[in-house]
Amino acid sequence: MSTITISGVQKKYHQKPVLKDVNLAIQPNQIYGLLGRNGVGKSTLMRIIANRTRIKVGTVTLDGESVFENERAQNRIYLMSTAKLLPQEEKVFKLFKLIKTMYGDFDEAYAEHLAEAFELDTHSKLRKLSTGYQTIANLIIALCLPCDFIFLDEPVLGLDANHRELFYQELAETFSSKPRTFVIATHLIEEVSGLLNHVFVIADGKVSLDEDVEVLQQRGRQISGPAALVQDYLQGVPVLHTTRLGGMMTAYCLQTPLERPLPAGVSLDGMNLQRLFIEVTRKPGGRDEI
Amino acid sequence: MSTITISGVQKKYHQKPVLKDVNLAIQPNQIYGLLGRNGVGKSTLMRIIANRTRIKVGTVTLDGESVFENERAQNRIYLMSTAKLLPQEEKVFKLFKLIKTMYGDFDEAYAEHLAEAFELDTHSKLRKLSTGYQTIANLIIALCLPCDFIFLDEPVLGLDANHRELFYQELAETFSSKPRTFVIATHLIEEVSGLLNHVFVIADGKVSLDEDVEVLQQRGRQISGPAALVQDYLQGVPVLHTTRLGGMMTAYCLQTPLERPLPAGVSLDGMNLQRLFIEVTRKPGGRDEI
Repeated sequence: MSTITISGVQKKYHQKPVLKDVNLAIQPNQIYGLLGRNGVGKSTLMRIIANRTRIKVGTVTLDGESVFENERAQNRIYLMSTAKLLPQEEKVFKLFKLIKTMYGDFDEAYAEHLAEAFELDTHSKLRKLSTGYQTIANLIIALCLPCDFIFLDEPVLGLDANHRELFYQELAETFSSKPRTFVIATHLIEEVSGLLNHVFVIADGKVSLDEDVEVLQQRGRQISGPAALVQDYLQGVPVLHTTRLGGMMTAYCLQTPLERPLPAGVSLDGMNLQRLFIEVTRKPGGRDEI
Repeated sequence: MSTITISGVQKKYHQKPVLKDVNLAIQPNQIYGLLGRNGVGKSTLMRIIANRTRIKVGTVTLDGESVFENERAQNRIYLMSTAKLLPQEEKVFKLFKLIKTMYGDFDEAYAEHLAEAFELDTHSKLRKLSTGYQTIANLIIALCLPCDFIFLDEPVLGLDANHRELFYQELAETFSSKPRTFVIATHLIEEVSGLLNHVFVIADGKVSLDEDVEVLQQRGRQISGPAALVQDYLQGVPVLHTTRLGGMMTAYCLQTPLERPLPAGVSLDGMNLQRLFIEVTRKPGGRDEI
């Protein structure tokens, strides 16, 4: 099975290193979350994989071949972003036909189904659609293309709650009926978390977390109770962050000493993925020691 | 206490009516959610109140006086939006000083605290900040101005989860230490729901829902179970929407017949605010009858 392998990728912007040493493997038939704070280089990394930005250091391969300037590899990769790369003067239904002639297997019937579900006016020119509907047209194309690796950069930015929910539902359905790989960069982590199999977190130019969502959700814990008892329970354990309210403390951890007996009055709960992300990506200054 | 009263407001765009007949009252010391599907006219309504868009039909008054072309009223109203109305070439800390000379009571100390909390480089020119940090600079100004009515149009669009959380925390704190009115238009309803006292939903050019969040959360219910039992329980009751999976049905209601005994195997739960919004604003075609 085909894998995209990213090795030692570096990229500077205006002399400033953004990506310092990125290494990761994108497997077939997975839904990945590509997470990171604003400005950390998620879009840059996707643009590199999709051959839209060049790099001097590092490699990106598919089936062992570099994906750069490689038409065969790039035909299997699609990057949907907010960038207006599609012809703005074209009517949407003509755009679908145009794309069908370019990619033989574009799923026109599914595109029509999606346009109807989203109430997208396919007889409008792309340019005349609202920003939200331009995003939706972009999303529909991404879901109907016959590519093996589909990268979605902030796919739901500015969409209302109804359209976001519809998109998540359709993504789940098309993934289950025709498995392929989606890589989703988004700041709306909690909403999308139910869809994700695996998460990459980029921080300080590197992959700081590369883990299955199921494992992460087992590892992430929040421990609350009287501060002295929480501190005692977590003695010697790395803590991501603590908050205090009066004499009470909540500590967020990825390694919980489950073998120790939990003191009475202390509670131990799971962390949802967005909370876990927030705690994992706090600036070092915000880290707490117990 | 001062109230902003909006009566019979109409507004067309390109001959198409957007706001058809908007009536609502914005009370002092509240945090409102101004909700609605994409393109429904939330931004337009805020721009009308802030005297940035003119109307031919309808009135907006503060203390009984029209707010249009009324400097005294407008000095008490602030609209923070993504529009780049601030001087782009100014450094952020100079901008703070400039605003302080314009509005005597601009809270410079709090602005400095917020800049530090968000790690905003106040020695950068506004134009040179990333989109996310331009939004943050805008937000800081909005939180530090001495206005009685502060309108925030998509305040967290594009912000990462950490910055969104920090913003919600700071908003709650500044509201509690210095009560004033905030009106927040956002698509991230669930995240902000804990802050809101009251919700306006705009649909089809009118206010379709104008209710305290507490009341709404008591009214909104989801009823799940075997379809025949759910249908039987809800006989004659208006239902917002139903979903089915196999023989099971979930129905979403604002009026639940709590006096009827709940059949065994049927569950009745609350609806969170985002779910309630989605169900309330479905297109009529999507409405279901039991």
